[in-house]
Amino acid sequence: MTHTYNVRVYYEDTDMGGIVYHANYLRYIERARSDWVRRLGNDQNAMREAGIVWVVRKLEAEYLATAKFEDELTIETEMVDLSGVRLTMSQLVRRGDTPIFKATVTAVCMNAAGKPVRLPAEIRALLRKTP
Amino acid sequence: MTHTYNVRVYYEDTDMGGIVYHANYLRYIERARSDWVRRLGNDQNAMREAGIVWVVRKLEAEYLATAKFEDELTIETEMVDLSGVRLTMSQLVRRGDTPIFKATVTAVCMNAAGKPVRLPAEIRALLRKTP
Amino acid sequence: MTHTYNVRVYYEDTDMGGIVYHANYLRYIERARSDWVRRLGNDQNAMREAGIVWVVRKLEAEYLATAKFEDELTIETEMVDLSGVRLTMSQLVRRGDTPIFKATVTAVCMNAAGKPVRLPAEIRALLRKTP
Amino acid sequence: MTHTYNVRVYYEDTDMGGIVYHANYLRYIERARSDWVRRLGNDQNAMREAGIVWVVRKLEAEYLATAKFEDELTIETEMVDLSGVRLTMSQLVRRGDTPIFKATVTAVCMNAAGKPVRLPAEIRALLRKTP
Repeated sequence: MTHTYNVRVYYEDTDMGGIVYHANYLRYIERARSDWVRRLGNDQNAMREAGIVWVVRKLEAEYLATAKFEDELTIETEMVDLSGVRLTMSQLVRRGDTPIFKATVTAVCMNAAGKPVRLPAEIRALLRKTP
Repeated sequence: MTHTYNVRVYYEDTDMGGIVYHANYLRYIERARSDWVRRLGNDQNAMREAGIVWVVRKLEAEYLATAKFEDELTIETEMVDLSGVRLTMSQLVRRGDTPIFKATVTAVCMNAAGKPVRLPAEIRALLRKTP
Repeated sequence: MTHTYNVRVYYEDTDMGGIVYHANYLRYIERARSDWVRRLGNDQNAMREAGIVWVVRKLEAEYLATAKFEDELTIETEMVDLSGVRLTMSQLVRRGDTPIFKATVTAVCMNAAGKPVRLPAEIRALLRKTP
Repeated sequence: MTHTYNVRVYYEDTDMGGIVYHANYLRYIERARSDWVRRLGNDQNAMREAGIVWVVRKLEAEYLATAKFEDELTIETEMVDLSGVRLTMSQLVRRGDTPIFKATVTAVCMNAAGKPVRLPAEIRALLRKTP
């Protein structure tokens, strides 16, 4: 199932080219991922207190069109793979029907020592509930 | 004595007005403050491990001129007041002789519970060494 | 009349202190100002095409408490002064009833040459409609 | 030939995980690219006045290790392909000999209407001078 999340482009997001600064799409799509896992019941504050955080491990992205100040963008997030150690998602940023940016993002869990660890079972269970 | 620190303006710093986005001066002047205290011997990583972080408590700022992509800016930082609980600094961002931004920043120390605490004695001692 | 605007704290907004990075409140309150003027009918894209942009001229801010990841914050914006050349607003960021950050922000209009200009009459008219 | 560029990690770059926020590596490597082309003689301010800007078209990135506040990082940039319409670079962020982040970035030129255009001949000539 696809999770959708909306953002509006603000001044902070633009650069002197008059468009959204390329790195800021990574902020947008992380907001969408955070919203998605929160709705599934994954409490990232509690995870962090337990010494585990989500970190991005791999990213493949294409910039398909530009977005401008005041644009309303929709972000679609879909899980494409889940293993014992990693979660891979496909994300699309679009303005109406116009695709703007798409990315495949792989995230893993890291402990306080900075080492990758297996995804906690309860988080895997939450993610598996995704239709 | 005045601490000086140089920054160059990059794409990430600009906005669609073609100038440095106003909030980014706060990033610039914090880089200068971090450089200043590091040179004095204040290890913020060690502070954080000890459960204490510097936080900004108050800020007064004036935007005097604009800065553009590729500009080389100099930041001057001076301590204007130091008490048992707070540190106040005056900071100026200039491009050559042209003043761009100036601010008075008051910082305090906060513990892991989010409560303000007295400045650690060793940090006060380091700061007092500033001529 | 008070304009209200909501933001949620995301990963991008936090720093290693575990709280919202101080400069990011300036991003939050600008989102609120942009939302406020857009609702009044001020089209900042059209302004920019006409060679005029809003710029912040002065800022006085106090950090009253900290905000954390996932917090839902409300920003209240009120116009406190409007002259032919400047607009001054009072802004408060709160989490429920807890004040987090407050600021007084003065903005002016700047032309493409980087010079301050009088506020366009139609924009003053829009702002004056604010009860 | 490899271009090298150094950055230090500041507070603004970190997130509540205590490490550099993942999107900020894109800012770091763009600083390196801007430094590289400026040294070759590519004036991005003049380009923009002529109605052309560089935009990122494609990005493939891997996060290999984490970086922390105060870390000094080195960014290595190498051109891997140059055609009439696009420039592809390989970039590595390392702390000493420890690789932290690597990316392949494809950039194109865009005109004021947001359309991709051929790379200006004088820019291709500058880039070809790279040994």
